[in-house]
Amino acid sequence: MTDYTPTSHKAIHHVHRAKERASYDSESVFKILDNNMLAHVGFTLPPGVTEEDDWPFVMPMCFARIEDTVYIHGYVSGRMMKALASDDLPKVCITVTQIDALVVAMSPFHNSFNYQCAVVFGRGRLVQSDEEKDRALEAITNQPFHHADRWNDSRPPNNIDLKSTKVIAVQIEKASVKIRTGGVSDDRKDLENPETVKQYYSGLVPVKTVFGVPEPSPTNVAETPAYLLPEAMNKER
Amino acid sequence: MTDYTPTSHKAIHHVHRAKERASYDSESVFKILDNNMLAHVGFTLPPGVTEEDDWPFVMPMCFARIEDTVYIHGYVSGRMMKALASDDLPKVCITVTQIDALVVAMSPFHNSFNYQCAVVFGRGRLVQSDEEKDRALEAITNQPFHHADRWNDSRPPNNIDLKSTKVIAVQIEKASVKIRTGGVSDDRKDLENPETVKQYYSGLVPVKTVFGVPEPSPTNVAETPAYLLPEAMNKER
Repeated sequence: MTDYTPTSHKAIHHVHRAKERASYDSESVFKILDNNMLAHVGFTLPPGVTEEDDWPFVMPMCFARIEDTVYIHGYVSGRMMKALASDDLPKVCITVTQIDALVVAMSPFHNSFNYQCAVVFGRGRLVQSDEEKDRALEAITNQPFHHADRWNDSRPPNNIDLKSTKVIAVQIEKASVKIRTGGVSDDRKDLENPETVKQYYSGLVPVKTVFGVPEPSPTNVAETPAYLLPEAMNKER
Repeated sequence: MTDYTPTSHKAIHHVHRAKERASYDSESVFKILDNNMLAHVGFTLPPGVTEEDDWPFVMPMCFARIEDTVYIHGYVSGRMMKALASDDLPKVCITVTQIDALVVAMSPFHNSFNYQCAVVFGRGRLVQSDEEKDRALEAITNQPFHHADRWNDSRPPNNIDLKSTKVIAVQIEKASVKIRTGGVSDDRKDLENPETVKQYYSGLVPVKTVFGVPEPSPTNVAETPAYLLPEAMNKER
């Protein structure tokens, strides 16, 4: 199994703050990628595409991971697809974040989130082979359904579908994970002050992404698949 | 009221794909910023900070908006704070995304999310004045609690707190909003095919961020404030 241990504190994926929360093994990286349905993809647009060059650009995208590669897809003529499919293999940062709790301290300077975050660095490559494209689209389709096989429970793709969609592969070159769990880290001085402890609340507020009951389209005459029901979608992972 | 109407299709905040979902008025931008607790902040690190220059970097951050400025904060010596506080006013993209539903079509190529997304462009400026810093920290503290006054219901800041924290202001120069609502846009051909309609489900799966019952710290002897309870935290906005 690959890991992404940084060889220097100057490595871009080296976590500087709260290092005890960091890890670099691929198992930790992959777990966060696989458990979430939204990535924020950062890149810069190539010269000429916008009025001013070198603005960073962050786009929310659905995605999927296969082995050590993250796939995203988009409309064939989209600006982002053009940027990420360019021949000079543009640098990309893909960040996936999950919030598990609000950490509410007596002092706001100890407020935090319990969270799990994966930050991945790699280069954009346009997927050319039909086979890789097919595998990627299948994985991207299934990702929001916790990898249930929605792809094969859907109308199979036709030529128009496939021609209008580009897939970008970003092989993970470097990655880091940062996770905070546990209770509040209140200031010791605050904890030792009986007045402060009596006056100000300290605790966690749990946060969860919850999937509701599916609402069939007016046109729908198929049964609702079991993998879309709340008991499947909200299962602990 | 300001709006951010792009003057050219080459403006970086000009929405190219699914333009009917786009808007550029500040009311729409501010509403998404104010209703969410997590931003993904994109920037590049200045030369010398990392081994390789010009990688894009996307960090999940808590934040707040006051008028047309987004504030983020961090530890005084953090790499990100150094990057965003540098004198050359680094370019920043701040993206806030909320997922409201999975849109499940008969063909995966019409799958989508119902979502609300604000993308904001501006330049990082280190906040120098104590007054602005104070206002920003108050707003950032209150943001995850839907702007309840947690700041004044917390132990007031001391010098160590304030000295260890930097605040970055990003005045919004350009911004866009993209929102998808409503039902599934199934392919017309799929809808007209009785076999397809019978075989494949079509509908929405609602998605919500849900706050649970607060879990007081073992050290807590204060009452749980009403604004932290699920009925307040989960109120429709």
